[in-house]
Amino acid sequence: MMENLELLKGIDSPEDLKKIPKKELAKVCDELRQFIINVVSIHGGHFAASLGVVELSVALHYVYNAPFDNIVWDVGHQAYGHKILTGRKHNFQTNRKYKGLSGFPKRSESAYDVFGVGHSSTSISAALGMALANKYLAEPKKNVAVIGDGSMTAGMAFEAMNHAGSTDADVLIILNDNCMSIDPNVGALKDYLTQISTSTVYNKMKEDVWHFLEKLPIGGNFTKEKTSQIVASIKGILLKQSNLFEALNLRYFGPIDGHNITKLVDTLEHIKKIPGPKILHILTVKGKGYEPAEKEQTKWHAPGLFDKVTGEIFKKTHVNPQPQKYQDVFGHTILELAQQNSKIFGITPAMPSGSSLKMMMEAMPHRAFDVGICEQHAVTLSAGLATQGLKVFCNIYSSFMQRAYDQVIHDVAIQKLPVIFCLDRAGLVGEDGPTHHGCYDLAYFKCIPNMIIAAPMNEHELRNLMFTAQLEDTNVPFVIRYPRGEGVLIDWKNAFQKIEIGTARWLKKGTQVGIISLGHPGNFANHAIHKLPAHYSIGHLDLRFLKPLDEKILHEFCQSCQSIITIEDGTILGGLGSTIAEFLQQNNYQNKLIMLGIPDKIIEHGSPLELYQECQFDVDSICKTIINLYGEDK
Amino acid sequence: MMENLELLKGIDSPEDLKKIPKKELAKVCDELRQFIINVVSIHGGHFAASLGVVELSVALHYVYNAPFDNIVWDVGHQAYGHKILTGRKHNFQTNRKYKGLSGFPKRSESAYDVFGVGHSSTSISAALGMALANKYLAEPKKNVAVIGDGSMTAGMAFEAMNHAGSTDADVLIILNDNCMSIDPNVGALKDYLTQISTSTVYNKMKEDVWHFLEKLPIGGNFTKEKTSQIVASIKGILLKQSNLFEALNLRYFGPIDGHNITKLVDTLEHIKKIPGPKILHILTVKGKGYEPAEKEQTKWHAPGLFDKVTGEIFKKTHVNPQPQKYQDVFGHTILELAQQNSKIFGITPAMPSGSSLKMMMEAMPHRAFDVGICEQHAVTLSAGLATQGLKVFCNIYSSFMQRAYDQVIHDVAIQKLPVIFCLDRAGLVGEDGPTHHGCYDLAYFKCIPNMIIAAPMNEHELRNLMFTAQLEDTNVPFVIRYPRGEGVLIDWKNAFQKIEIGTARWLKKGTQVGIISLGHPGNFANHAIHKLPAHYSIGHLDLRFLKPLDEKILHEFCQSCQSIITIEDGTILGGLGSTIAEFLQQNNYQNKLIMLGIPDKIIEHGSPLELYQECQFDVDSICKTIINLYGEDK
Repeated sequence: MMENLELLKGIDSPEDLKKIPKKELAKVCDELRQFIINVVSIHGGHFAASLGVVELSVALHYVYNAPFDNIVWDVGHQAYGHKILTGRKHNFQTNRKYKGLSGFPKRSESAYDVFGVGHSSTSISAALGMALANKYLAEPKKNVAVIGDGSMTAGMAFEAMNHAGSTDADVLIILNDNCMSIDPNVGALKDYLTQISTSTVYNKMKEDVWHFLEKLPIGGNFTKEKTSQIVASIKGILLKQSNLFEALNLRYFGPIDGHNITKLVDTLEHIKKIPGPKILHILTVKGKGYEPAEKEQTKWHAPGLFDKVTGEIFKKTHVNPQPQKYQDVFGHTILELAQQNSKIFGITPAMPSGSSLKMMMEAMPHRAFDVGICEQHAVTLSAGLATQGLKVFCNIYSSFMQRAYDQVIHDVAIQKLPVIFCLDRAGLVGEDGPTHHGCYDLAYFKCIPNMIIAAPMNEHELRNLMFTAQLEDTNVPFVIRYPRGEGVLIDWKNAFQKIEIGTARWLKKGTQVGIISLGHPGNFANHAIHKLPAHYSIGHLDLRFLKPLDEKILHEFCQSCQSIITIEDGTILGGLGSTIAEFLQQNNYQNKLIMLGIPDKIIEHGSPLELYQECQFDVDSICKTIINLYGEDK
Repeated sequence: MMENLELLKGIDSPEDLKKIPKKELAKVCDELRQFIINVVSIHGGHFAASLGVVELSVALHYVYNAPFDNIVWDVGHQAYGHKILTGRKHNFQTNRKYKGLSGFPKRSESAYDVFGVGHSSTSISAALGMALANKYLAEPKKNVAVIGDGSMTAGMAFEAMNHAGSTDADVLIILNDNCMSIDPNVGALKDYLTQISTSTVYNKMKEDVWHFLEKLPIGGNFTKEKTSQIVASIKGILLKQSNLFEALNLRYFGPIDGHNITKLVDTLEHIKKIPGPKILHILTVKGKGYEPAEKEQTKWHAPGLFDKVTGEIFKKTHVNPQPQKYQDVFGHTILELAQQNSKIFGITPAMPSGSSLKMMMEAMPHRAFDVGICEQHAVTLSAGLATQGLKVFCNIYSSFMQRAYDQVIHDVAIQKLPVIFCLDRAGLVGEDGPTHHGCYDLAYFKCIPNMIIAAPMNEHELRNLMFTAQLEDTNVPFVIRYPRGEGVLIDWKNAFQKIEIGTARWLKKGTQVGIISLGHPGNFANHAIHKLPAHYSIGHLDLRFLKPLDEKILHEFCQSCQSIITIEDGTILGGLGSTIAEFLQQNNYQNKLIMLGIPDKIIEHGSPLELYQECQFDVDSICKTIINLYGEDK
């Protein structure tokens, strides 16, 4: 991995980096980039984002004095260079692996990771908090937030800038402008940034105008006094009001080329001495230095393993046909439904590829949008669309839905608007870890009145739930949550069938142990049942709806079996386990209950299977639980 | 109420209003203002905000064709004029009363209330959703959002503008700029708005510069060509980049006087014909037309009952000393603690008066801030402060905390940062109704690992919990939730005592019925116990911590009594009731369990007592429940 990386070999900390002469930093950047390509091509991970900030990572650690100074990375999937430069070069191949390095900055991993991330747009708030604290504590620490233009579209970043601009806190916001989220960035701000970056109206022009004004001729009505008054005014406008960030009272620097390491270092050296809140706008290319990634930035956001020489991304090949991803079943199905029902709209906050809403966006651009990283707006926009009679599928990853919790309650549930929320990435997402696990949705939605909460066990169920949700007589908010990754069926494209809302389905009757599962983990239960001796009498209920609860079938179920196991990929607290415990208690059932699911602790990153095992709801753990119950009963 | 209100008498709908000649609209405004003063002085309610938009309300209903056209009021406490003009004049005295009109726009109340509100900053998203839907449906409806400058500080409004500016949706944003939230507005945006409203640099100046440029002399190096090039550039900057909203591609109009009804009507008539997304900036005075309210806007936000002639606000007078409000106990206590512990900081998002953090803000302006309406930023800022070793009390109303749910999980809980969240207005808040009830916090926090969740039963408990939370060895997130309104103790100022985290307290032992209460409703239980015959053997446990659970004491408790009643002012689903049901089920206790609290439906507005009665956890309902249990047991 380190072959021919002469300079990088010697860098185990920012102190080592600082010993290298400035003129050799470009070589450090090349080597750092090469090292990232080497490791990610073999071990996987996020890719294009870190390549885009190689120079910035080197410059920041060259100029600033971390970890005394605070460097906060927004989102954090671009922080590989930072990690490698701060003592994690030698175990970087454990990145995103179980018990290995996190794919994101993480406070418990390193003193250099001053703020943990994963979700976007938190960095300015965090860095401002640090800056205000250090001002109060009289600590001469510098505080830097590195944030992309995609993350800038989330309102939280605006909230933080609005506050920062009214303080004298020593905080530097570095706007890493590459016109991308995972997908291309959208919205008016993006256009504006492009405009101030490329337009002569803003850059050279601003200078020209300046010089022109210095030399204005005097004559006629143009007395010297009048002219200098006007000139001062124009300059005032140019200086103070010509820029969105300056309107928020942030000193604005830039835009500068974010791949010119010398210019970056010099600029940061200069800015470091300037007190107060300020913003440096740098222009970078996502995937910089690796041609295929520069060309297809979304594809190379997290490409999986690839041949670094040819740029070929390795696809798993299978002899037999494989199930589709749930997201693609969603993508195909919403388009199919939208072709039949002209009232259907699709909304995604910045995840057109990840949610596969892209399919509908391409086919029906007026009925399916990416609104940028702004879950709050996405939900209330959907509510607004719903008031006019439209059937909106608002697709948001489960963990990102946390960002719009109030909007679901305040704008959708209280008003009983029939918005359909498709929560992709529900459950344990794997390598992205705790910030991305969709653990809490069952619990945080269950307490809200008027909500239907459903989870499909397979692709047909997903399609039928989506079909049911868009029917005219489904007139309350409808949540459908499903996991990251593949389903279980080859022939996923069934004919739509309406599902009676609030009905569970019997998969298997049995008298001894009864399993109640919700959503995809029902398949783990199913596998477990088939692995166990045939004489085991195991019942299996796919609850399908956490809310409303199918009490009728639950009564049958509780009366039919002795012990009960619940299986879910959400927090047991407040989720399926809690729900069944309540049901048993309230109805005086004496069945023993074992609740499998996500326990009350933070689950770190790892492969989904490793995490299921840790939480003990993988197939083997389910088998063991059943065998133990049988043993007890004997 | 309607004496001498000649014109208003005849207005029962916008159609009636439209029949009045434009020159008489000022009189309509006077009368509408008078009517609001008449009703609110006698019946209570929000006040200053509606007075500030009297002219706007009249102008909107004069120019637009509601409910065909969509008028969305942000927050909604300023919509009294709108309600009165749209057929609710005759029952306006039922405003905010149980089963009466809502204090906010509400879809189920009137076709004119096209979007329900209560929380801030949702209006642009909702109106944009309506506009996009109507464009798709080819409905020629106009869509208007009315939003205050305070609400503009919430990121959600920025998210919506960022999206709106990239569409051609027919949406008008009216920025009602009065420099106020409930308290004075804060932040860089406020300064910016003041600047563009008052500064000659922006207004007259802009015109001057324009004229000056038209007449630039030619001569020397200043060829005609070069000059006109430069002039075009300066004009480009003036036009396109001189304004924050224009940077987001919203056509900007204003600022204009929001109390000049003729000007408002003319401007709206003009803007109505202009397609696409646009913003009209109007300047208003909160409390306009009622002098005391203009002078003290925070006090007159919702003053209670008052003498409209003298401006005297009626205070309830009591012969005996009365308990303080919980918020004031918080306010005094944080200041007291901060005087002892230099690491304490206080943060409020726009509720300095409502939370009483104002006391500390006045005494220690560098350690206690109002950050504006931005709960998301407030939480992550607190996390940033905490990383530097500070002990931050972040005070957010329970229902507003829903806005920062992801930040609590992602920035605080996952990182185990010891931020202290004080959730004021937890439980049923009364007249503000469903958007403001703090129903869900117990459920939505309980599923998050690493959280301590506590609720004080009285002022001493609140103080002791706050004391405990700021101790150096309390190193995880700590939630303290307490209700709106008064506590129960006269001598609230006890000496601080540390509370062992996760310990409940026995209030009374008893063998028959056992009550487990959490927080303030423990006092209802206590009253009930004292109202019942002395021979009733009733136990009472103040659980104090929903998390971690005091399992030891719960075992004792369950073994000591036959039936159990839980009492809480949160949703039973996911809250205390659920928690005890789970505990009983998991430990094979057979006690009968009755769960009192907020049921799984939207609770409307009314006095707190009326709502407690509806939910059946008021003192009398508790008595009845106990008597029934005794009856059964006989």
